[in-house]
Amino acid sequence: MPQQSKQLSLKRLAIDTYKENVAYLHRDCALYRTEGFQALAKLEVKTGGRRKILAVLNVVDDDTIVGTDEIGLSEQAFAQMGKKEGTLVSIAHAEPPESMEAVRRKLRGERLSADDYIAITRDIADNRYSKVEMAAFVVTSGQTGLDRDEIMYLTHAMAKTGERAVWEEPLVADKHCIGGIPGNRTSMLVVPIVAAHGLLIPKTSSRAITSPAGTADTMEVLAKVEIGPKRIREIVHALRGCMVWGGTAKLAPVDDILISVERPLGMDSLGQMVASILSKKIAAGSTHLLIDIPVGPSAKVRQMREALQLRKLFEYVGDRSGLHLEVIITDGRQPIGRGIGPVLEARDVMQVLGNDPDAPNDLRQKALRLAGRVIEFDPDVRGGEGFAIARDILDSGRAMAKMGAIIDSQGRQAETIPPGSLTFDIHAERDGVVTAIHNQTMARIARLAGAPMDKGAGVDLMKKLGDPVSKGEVLYRVHAEFPPDLQFAKDQCRRDAGYTIGSPEDITPYSFGL
Amino acid sequence: MPQQSKQLSLKRLAIDTYKENVAYLHRDCALYRTEGFQALAKLEVKTGGRRKILAVLNVVDDDTIVGTDEIGLSEQAFAQMGKKEGTLVSIAHAEPPESMEAVRRKLRGERLSADDYIAITRDIADNRYSKVEMAAFVVTSGQTGLDRDEIMYLTHAMAKTGERAVWEEPLVADKHCIGGIPGNRTSMLVVPIVAAHGLLIPKTSSRAITSPAGTADTMEVLAKVEIGPKRIREIVHALRGCMVWGGTAKLAPVDDILISVERPLGMDSLGQMVASILSKKIAAGSTHLLIDIPVGPSAKVRQMREALQLRKLFEYVGDRSGLHLEVIITDGRQPIGRGIGPVLEARDVMQVLGNDPDAPNDLRQKALRLAGRVIEFDPDVRGGEGFAIARDILDSGRAMAKMGAIIDSQGRQAETIPPGSLTFDIHAERDGVVTAIHNQTMARIARLAGAPMDKGAGVDLMKKLGDPVSKGEVLYRVHAEFPPDLQFAKDQCRRDAGYTIGSPEDITPYSFGL
Repeated sequence: MPQQSKQLSLKRLAIDTYKENVAYLHRDCALYRTEGFQALAKLEVKTGGRRKILAVLNVVDDDTIVGTDEIGLSEQAFAQMGKKEGTLVSIAHAEPPESMEAVRRKLRGERLSADDYIAITRDIADNRYSKVEMAAFVVTSGQTGLDRDEIMYLTHAMAKTGERAVWEEPLVADKHCIGGIPGNRTSMLVVPIVAAHGLLIPKTSSRAITSPAGTADTMEVLAKVEIGPKRIREIVHALRGCMVWGGTAKLAPVDDILISVERPLGMDSLGQMVASILSKKIAAGSTHLLIDIPVGPSAKVRQMREALQLRKLFEYVGDRSGLHLEVIITDGRQPIGRGIGPVLEARDVMQVLGNDPDAPNDLRQKALRLAGRVIEFDPDVRGGEGFAIARDILDSGRAMAKMGAIIDSQGRQAETIPPGSLTFDIHAERDGVVTAIHNQTMARIARLAGAPMDKGAGVDLMKKLGDPVSKGEVLYRVHAEFPPDLQFAKDQCRRDAGYTIGSPEDITPYSFGL
Repeated sequence: MPQQSKQLSLKRLAIDTYKENVAYLHRDCALYRTEGFQALAKLEVKTGGRRKILAVLNVVDDDTIVGTDEIGLSEQAFAQMGKKEGTLVSIAHAEPPESMEAVRRKLRGERLSADDYIAITRDIADNRYSKVEMAAFVVTSGQTGLDRDEIMYLTHAMAKTGERAVWEEPLVADKHCIGGIPGNRTSMLVVPIVAAHGLLIPKTSSRAITSPAGTADTMEVLAKVEIGPKRIREIVHALRGCMVWGGTAKLAPVDDILISVERPLGMDSLGQMVASILSKKIAAGSTHLLIDIPVGPSAKVRQMREALQLRKLFEYVGDRSGLHLEVIITDGRQPIGRGIGPVLEARDVMQVLGNDPDAPNDLRQKALRLAGRVIEFDPDVRGGEGFAIARDILDSGRAMAKMGAIIDSQGRQAETIPPGSLTFDIHAERDGVVTAIHNQTMARIARLAGAPMDKGAGVDLMKKLGDPVSKGEVLYRVHAEFPPDLQFAKDQCRRDAGYTIGSPEDITPYSFGL
């Protein structure tokens, strides 16, 4: 068998396989048959030079997709290969990435070194890990737990892979909530207030993945959020702040890859959460960071004990990463604001900015507290004065003016989207006071109603914790844009509407000072 | 947006994605855009009826693969869907399989119930688990460990999914080695001896995946091994035994799926090994089973302590599965026989069957011991007499005659394949005795030389443990069929040739009675 028969011609297949490289071989390809490859095996694809990539094998029985002397690569794999179609390549069974040896040590319960984490993240960033190998890393780090030095190593290693934003200013502020509270759109208030004060706060946000709205989804109701890096820089230099989608920047890409594995498993260990948040912030060029940890019976963090443990972890890693980091523990017993879903949340935000007497006061108060703490990062502000400064900025209309300028710079949306026109109301089944509002249940109802994809879909809360209600009074209204979605939400409300009515003494006290 | 626009036309794509269902949507498909699916997300694809499957999403930019109103399914997914091309289907974000809730409990360190394992294996068999979810299950079961009841639950649950062979005889014998020892082709001797004695021994074997040869690869040198279930049944009824590839039977398919995840991770926990082996044997209809556990410094099991622990596990689960199970602990300090690789191993086997004075005695002795123990499953055989019966069958030529009949029934290979014509020898670098032969290194050299794909490739051992050698004497010969493979093997031998020469007292004693 002559050696040249062991070469295949490269072909680009227009198939997007996201974070996993896929190679396609025809079932009658001589190499597939003689080398004993099996579908889903991992291949090394290499040119005569030093260029090589790893890819998972799919076997094809259709000549129009790949011929018997070709190898097809999915889009990402083809781009990573960086060679023209028709280039001759050879293939071999791939060895597992070298750093899997460290993962296997972790599987045996060992503690890993900084170098191990650098090697692991580099191999993951280079697409050398299969999903299975990544899952092994994620599960074993979540399960045996990472000690706090390991969390720091992982944070630094993740921040190092990918790009890093440089703002050329001594103070780049940011705030971040660990999530889990519906509504809670404080960033859209904190950014204009802090920017109006003059601190640099270039905020990049995510879209919702499991929640009914991310800051990017809600901001998008008002302005464009998918903005190139050059334009972001211009806006931030002109206005001191922005609110854009972070998906276009290649900051800490390993974090995104690991999240794509953690999320379907419902894994959210404290260590992974800290490494994920801080690696992104370090890569984004933040120097001063306020972390919001809501605590409540249906929040991500349910016990004060756990919140304190998480605070220490953030502080430990933050202090060793050149970050000025503060943690604030907040009341997470119920959604913040009234609206849940992009349009309804944007309405709440604009009411607060407009000093509307109907604006939800809990959202206003929480945003002022957070903005105040961020403003106190300013060395010229005396400790304890931040709240009053933030309130002045908000009350004077300067926050609203800043918001208007940011919206115009990013690109104001031409159309105003109304709340979803299909609605139903949920009524109190007895007299009493609202003693609990279940965060996850309310999020689930809003998602079933169509949020965040249908911007107007969601839930509008008429009653909050401690409010007295009479039998038959409306607790909340569900908005949807399509009948089946309305029905899905209705079915959920019938099973569990998320509200508990009782006596004032049944309310779980929030006795932790803010 | 009318409801019918939410339907897509089904298309079969001739892409083999093995154990993972893949769905292909065009990037301009309205549903892809509005529903916010992301590549690699998990979709539920359903007809108007109750038919539904889960599949991982790949996004396509090529109209010739799928159109914007179509959904492509990989071969397995299309078969599982069981509908014609053009059928209208709808898609939705898939919920994680229900049994993932149990996996998450396992992640938290809990013990799972028999029902949990049944639910997990059923969901895996129905392709409801993604690779990531399977990896989480495998890693967490390997890492927190399964207690012995859990191993039993998993074994029974795996045996129940898939088909089950029924032989309609009271005694169906089998033997199984846990692996890790090159050569060691005892099954090809045990089957003809035991079948000649009259016990039913329908042996299905695997092909090599990480070793230089599986029994199916070696048997294939002499006879066809890919044989349909009906023909297998005829052969076994006529001859009392067979040696076929087990890949066509759908026995305990979940085991194969889990192995495809465990293997790349290099995970081989004792519990998973026991569940894997016993579930396959139960499904294959075995009633009497002999398990061979080789112990040695470079074997899978390195300590007698660990071998005993594994024996107890096999016994515990076997006794609760209606199996008559015996465990034999054997000398795993070196390869068994001379040849490593299909052709060389087949030569060893035929030498032993032919009572050739040059036949490797260690292979003969081990096969006789194992066959003797299997023969003692026969209630008419007195304990301790099996070895002598086996030896009589072998010495009399009845084993060879049985082997000839089996080969003819399965289909004798027309051509005799010689050992690979390209060779090099490894010589002793000093005088002394062979004090160690490293199992994994010898396996690696044989694989680099081309085994098991190139049947004639492999290693032929001239010296074994304890043999005196003079400087320059040949220790072993490597056979290959292609020059690059020969070079790969040579490079490995230069780094580490696998042999240690020293004084007789350096040999690790094997002081455990067989």
